[in-house]
Amino acid sequence: MSEAKPELSAVGFIGLGNMGGPMALRLLAAGHAVSVCGRDARRLDPVLAAGAVRCADPAEVAAASDMVLTCVTNTDAVEEVLFGTRGLVHGARPGLVVVDMSTVSPDATRRWAEYLNRNHGIAWLDAPVSGGPSGAASGTLAIMVGGSPAVFARARPVLAHLGRPTLVGEAGAGQTTKLVNQILVAGLTALVAEAQGLAARAGLDVAALPQALAGGRADSVLLQLFWPRMAAGDYAPTSTVTSILKDLAMVESMGRAKAAALPLTALVTELNRWLVAQGHAGEDITALYRFYRPASAC
Amino acid sequence: MSEAKPELSAVGFIGLGNMGGPMALRLLAAGHAVSVCGRDARRLDPVLAAGAVRCADPAEVAAASDMVLTCVTNTDAVEEVLFGTRGLVHGARPGLVVVDMSTVSPDATRRWAEYLNRNHGIAWLDAPVSGGPSGAASGTLAIMVGGSPAVFARARPVLAHLGRPTLVGEAGAGQTTKLVNQILVAGLTALVAEAQGLAARAGLDVAALPQALAGGRADSVLLQLFWPRMAAGDYAPTSTVTSILKDLAMVESMGRAKAAALPLTALVTELNRWLVAQGHAGEDITALYRFYRPASAC
Repeated sequence: MSEAKPELSAVGFIGLGNMGGPMALRLLAAGHAVSVCGRDARRLDPVLAAGAVRCADPAEVAAASDMVLTCVTNTDAVEEVLFGTRGLVHGARPGLVVVDMSTVSPDATRRWAEYLNRNHGIAWLDAPVSGGPSGAASGTLAIMVGGSPAVFARARPVLAHLGRPTLVGEAGAGQTTKLVNQILVAGLTALVAEAQGLAARAGLDVAALPQALAGGRADSVLLQLFWPRMAAGDYAPTSTVTSILKDLAMVESMGRAKAAALPLTALVTELNRWLVAQGHAGEDITALYRFYRPASAC
Repeated sequence: MSEAKPELSAVGFIGLGNMGGPMALRLLAAGHAVSVCGRDARRLDPVLAAGAVRCADPAEVAAASDMVLTCVTNTDAVEEVLFGTRGLVHGARPGLVVVDMSTVSPDATRRWAEYLNRNHGIAWLDAPVSGGPSGAASGTLAIMVGGSPAVFARARPVLAHLGRPTLVGEAGAGQTTKLVNQILVAGLTALVAEAQGLAARAGLDVAALPQALAGGRADSVLLQLFWPRMAAGDYAPTSTVTSILKDLAMVESMGRAKAAALPLTALVTELNRWLVAQGHAGEDITALYRFYRPASAC
């Protein structure tokens, strides 16, 4: 295997949601041939208009591609894309590189990577992202990659169109890193909501606060991004309560497996479950501010 | 009062601790005459060597100054500096500007500001800071200022040597903003510790993680600053557990007064109290990682 591997130019993209859609558009804009599949016209039309080639199913996408990116809802959805009746494995040639950008189980990820390599000669990277739809659109996602350095080196030029890829370890390590990321994202969202609740009740000029704290020890990406949305009561989904709870369930499971105490995350998880119980499952995680905002703002 | 006010060139500095010391040195380096007082040679010597003038007490400092900055431990300490037997009020001329950079009670601050203005013609700014000793030394502190726009405009050139001053409201608003800041600082410290505890137990390359998350939604100043310290078991004080608990007690008190629920902050406060109970009061707030680190790292 010492010969130079060909460039990965023919790309497949499966999962054209609020993250995958803008990512596929960036790859098209960068000049890649992009094959897609799906049944939802609302999701397909923008990428087809931008030049994507429509395939019937993941097997066809795999057959047309050197590299397939997947960005779907959860562990079961990845499993279906890979191994379903018309899954990737049924169209893939040996040497295909699969890059899963969904946020899913690290344990399942390690099993898939090993199985695909052994039985189908498929190379694997897990590459979950952080940055939301705006980061996907602007190509500034943090991309946490698990896999082998050789496969990473080949996939890197493609991933670089989507953000900043960092190899963090072997297969599964990208997903584990994403779970650590989600501890911080979910916790920070609650902290920002809690801080704004007190600021609003204490009569501070809420709108001015992120700028006043910018660059100090309290500053964070989410302070600058979520504080204004909470102040405006903007709970339009970028990352939904349902989605963060899916990730926090995996965090809980890993904490249990590794005997890691996670008291803040446990509290934050319960607060998000409470949002679901009150009918806000489909809102953005900024909706946590519903519990904190002054009554006059309700 | 429409005539132009003179420049504030003669500065007094009271409170030469791990924050005030480097701040006084920056003012001296910027060419200000700086009067100081105190009994601790270890704290005085560096600023005297840099050209500061030694006074016997706060009253003498006030008599020698157009503007006095205070940076002391707590509400009682500010009260003593202002109103003690040889406090500032006993040497101040009308027109003196007092800028309190300590983190203290917003309510007491509002009382002082009103009293000093009415009875002594002293102008007031509360200007607590965030950024730690390193921010104080590099002049990159976030400075949250409460007071009148006219006094802020006069003090701003001096404060600009210490960091980025932002006027956030009337007297007391600087302190209230600092308490909001401390909700985020204390909570983020616990979140970073919790995230690292899971990362370490899950076998991730802990040292590589802040870089992998840089710029993403999970990123924060404290992730970049505290994560490596926790990984190294570095609990050398920049901001002590005692000090954050003093601030969190004021947060609790304000939450009670304003009917603001603060569930995460309550939990974070208890974790810090637990550190005190275990003998770690004088350590940095990074010591919270003691509760999270894998046993093999203890």
